[in-house]
Amino acid sequence: MANPPQALRGMRDFLPERMILRHHVIGVFRRVFERYGFAPLDTPAVEYADTLEGKYGEEADKLIYKFEDRGGRQVGLRYDLTVPLARVVALYPELPKPFKRYQIAPVWRAERPQKGRYREFWQCDVDTVGTSSMLADAEILAVLHDALVQLGFRNFVMRLNNRKLLKGLSAYAGVPEGEEASVLRSVDKLDKIGEVGVRTELLEKGFAATVVDRLFDLLAPGEGDDVLARLRVPLADNPDAQQGIAELEQVREYLGALGVPETAYRIDLAMVRGLDYYTGPIFETVVEEPRIGSITGGGRYDHLVGIFSGRDIPAVGSTLGLERIVDVMEALGLFPEEKTRTQVLVTLFDADTTPEALRLATELRGAGVRAEVYLGEKGGLKRQLAYANNQGIPWVALLGPDEIARGEVTLRDMRDGTQQAVPRAQVADRLKSAPSG
Amino acid sequence: MANPPQALRGMRDFLPERMILRHHVIGVFRRVFERYGFAPLDTPAVEYADTLEGKYGEEADKLIYKFEDRGGRQVGLRYDLTVPLARVVALYPELPKPFKRYQIAPVWRAERPQKGRYREFWQCDVDTVGTSSMLADAEILAVLHDALVQLGFRNFVMRLNNRKLLKGLSAYAGVPEGEEASVLRSVDKLDKIGEVGVRTELLEKGFAATVVDRLFDLLAPGEGDDVLARLRVPLADNPDAQQGIAELEQVREYLGALGVPETAYRIDLAMVRGLDYYTGPIFETVVEEPRIGSITGGGRYDHLVGIFSGRDIPAVGSTLGLERIVDVMEALGLFPEEKTRTQVLVTLFDADTTPEALRLATELRGAGVRAEVYLGEKGGLKRQLAYANNQGIPWVALLGPDEIARGEVTLRDMRDGTQQAVPRAQVADRLKSAPSG
Repeated sequence: MANPPQALRGMRDFLPERMILRHHVIGVFRRVFERYGFAPLDTPAVEYADTLEGKYGEEADKLIYKFEDRGGRQVGLRYDLTVPLARVVALYPELPKPFKRYQIAPVWRAERPQKGRYREFWQCDVDTVGTSSMLADAEILAVLHDALVQLGFRNFVMRLNNRKLLKGLSAYAGVPEGEEASVLRSVDKLDKIGEVGVRTELLEKGFAATVVDRLFDLLAPGEGDDVLARLRVPLADNPDAQQGIAELEQVREYLGALGVPETAYRIDLAMVRGLDYYTGPIFETVVEEPRIGSITGGGRYDHLVGIFSGRDIPAVGSTLGLERIVDVMEALGLFPEEKTRTQVLVTLFDADTTPEALRLATELRGAGVRAEVYLGEKGGLKRQLAYANNQGIPWVALLGPDEIARGEVTLRDMRDGTQQAVPRAQVADRLKSAPSG
Repeated sequence: MANPPQALRGMRDFLPERMILRHHVIGVFRRVFERYGFAPLDTPAVEYADTLEGKYGEEADKLIYKFEDRGGRQVGLRYDLTVPLARVVALYPELPKPFKRYQIAPVWRAERPQKGRYREFWQCDVDTVGTSSMLADAEILAVLHDALVQLGFRNFVMRLNNRKLLKGLSAYAGVPEGEEASVLRSVDKLDKIGEVGVRTELLEKGFAATVVDRLFDLLAPGEGDDVLARLRVPLADNPDAQQGIAELEQVREYLGALGVPETAYRIDLAMVRGLDYYTGPIFETVVEEPRIGSITGGGRYDHLVGIFSGRDIPAVGSTLGLERIVDVMEALGLFPEEKTRTQVLVTLFDADTTPEALRLATELRGAGVRAEVYLGEKGGLKRQLAYANNQGIPWVALLGPDEIARGEVTLRDMRDGTQQAVPRAQVADRLKSAPSG
């Protein structure tokens, strides 16, 4: 067969080297999530189409991977992890509240594949359901901060804003009721097209110049510590805005107590987040270098989780974008250099000594060393060393009749080719204390 | 909404308590797999239908979750992890050989849901591709043994057989060419319907009584150490049988060197394995109590992986059945008792002391303790203790103005309700040394 079948367009195979990076990131996420009391959840990849549709907006609904199963049921592949969470919360009322869960799993979207956009990608979601306390919002931010620091990120900023505050801002500016979303979509582009660009777009959309002026009176410079203080007076008559400000101030207080330094976050009035369903604090994390967009996105959404329960259930959470985080970490050199998890390749000398080589490998594994035995049929030493080299295995153990007679093992350092004889009983300790990778 | 939407029939939500068990098992698998040098691989959930079809047999093909995607492509959900492995091996010829990979991922089958049979379930596959050496077969068995022992299994037996030997047996008995599979399907039922049952079924299928007699001459008692020795003479003229015997003997020799005790495996001539594609050693693991069928299944399959490469590529591997293993472990009480991963709930006294409680939780997390803060809005102490109790959190930390003034924390043991004041600096150590769960 000349052309082996490809993976589907927009979907990817993750070969071992890439998987090791992904496992590293997911392992850190899980450790941090669990350290804050978040518990793992998993849900099926396939859901009834009814469960998925009508939750994400019309445009998004078109991207759901829908099909009819053999029983004639309309079903679809999971589009995100939030709607399944809402379904689980409704279906199992016995779950304790607040319910703190994380889910790390692939989702599917029938998007046009392009650079950095895939039809299958993993989301890492962490959410707290069933409390309106700003403690929960602050905790999500602390989790994001902790996870990114544990991964080695140093230069990142979590941008905070609040949908209630944005609503108040729109009202203050005189945006007609029902047109807030359109205004916010333009404001969201401030980063990309600047103030002049946003002003032009708003005027073209038909908003009055006075409205646009009043909006920018408050928006610019809409960053930094004094933003909230500056807004309190002009927005004094707007209860939405006042509550939004109070929420952000409370989050800020808790963040301090949770050990998140002030340099790690920033109020940013122009940060809007795309999704319509947010109702309170919203947040996203951007890294300055490389410029890759946001690596986390989330906020409070008090109306979505209750959609299957028939009543509002407050919730707050965030997604961490696994793919982008891996990309950024690669660009920044934040990964330990590790092409393979194997620490040593135990080579085979001949058929007679093979059992002894297996015993050595077994001893090493028993001592906690990740030891691989060369399994190829044709395997002179040269081929075995090439295999170790190709795989990036840092050490090779040689065990011929001489070594066996002397109770030794020859250890070869694959980085510089040096060899030394080591008493067999000391091999595991030697490998464990060696710098790896 | 009176009736919240269910998960699809035959698919399951895994709530935290269950997920903690699954994570435990998967964690052990990964650690053991990597200790032998197996590397992680992941592939998309969706494949071209062409890639999946025609590999599993006609009956199985009907169970593939097929659909047409929005681009009009015929696609299907992954049916197992072996065909994607074959595709990956063909697509990336640069992968070093032998290629040792593991994949732990869900697969989908449009089966009729019934007890213990699901439409979405996880497979844990470990395979070595690109070598005919029996070392690879023995290593897979050592991995299975090691993984099960690490999980706490004590009474299990890995049953071994060999397809070449079975072929030789059939020829010796006089089974007409092309009818071996039918004979083997009957022999496979020996466990269930006994020798009389299998004899009857074979006669009903139209096999001659002499054929059935000759078959059972060799089959019974087809277990134990001397089986191979007993077969060598009668099957002396059959090259397939001789090679099958030699392969099993070599596997047995290597297993000893790999530290697998003789009590852990047994040659079982009546063990056939369902799939047609095996070509050499085959193996499965059964536990005696509870009787749940096999928890691992695998063998050598030298013609399947090359299907997309246009040439034979030898391979050997096994699946570990995650769902069954979790079920058996629950039945045997092999899991650590752990409803939650959280070690301590830090309670909130009032708004004034909340920041101090957050600082305590942050300190504990920094010291590696999994510490949860109570996030509910309404939270008298009684409600907070009920939450801890309901969640199975073993310790609760109380921090009121008195404790803060004294630099102490009151630790409450949720198992017996006893409380003690602990100097704040010692809380983390106290929790880490406490027996958990």
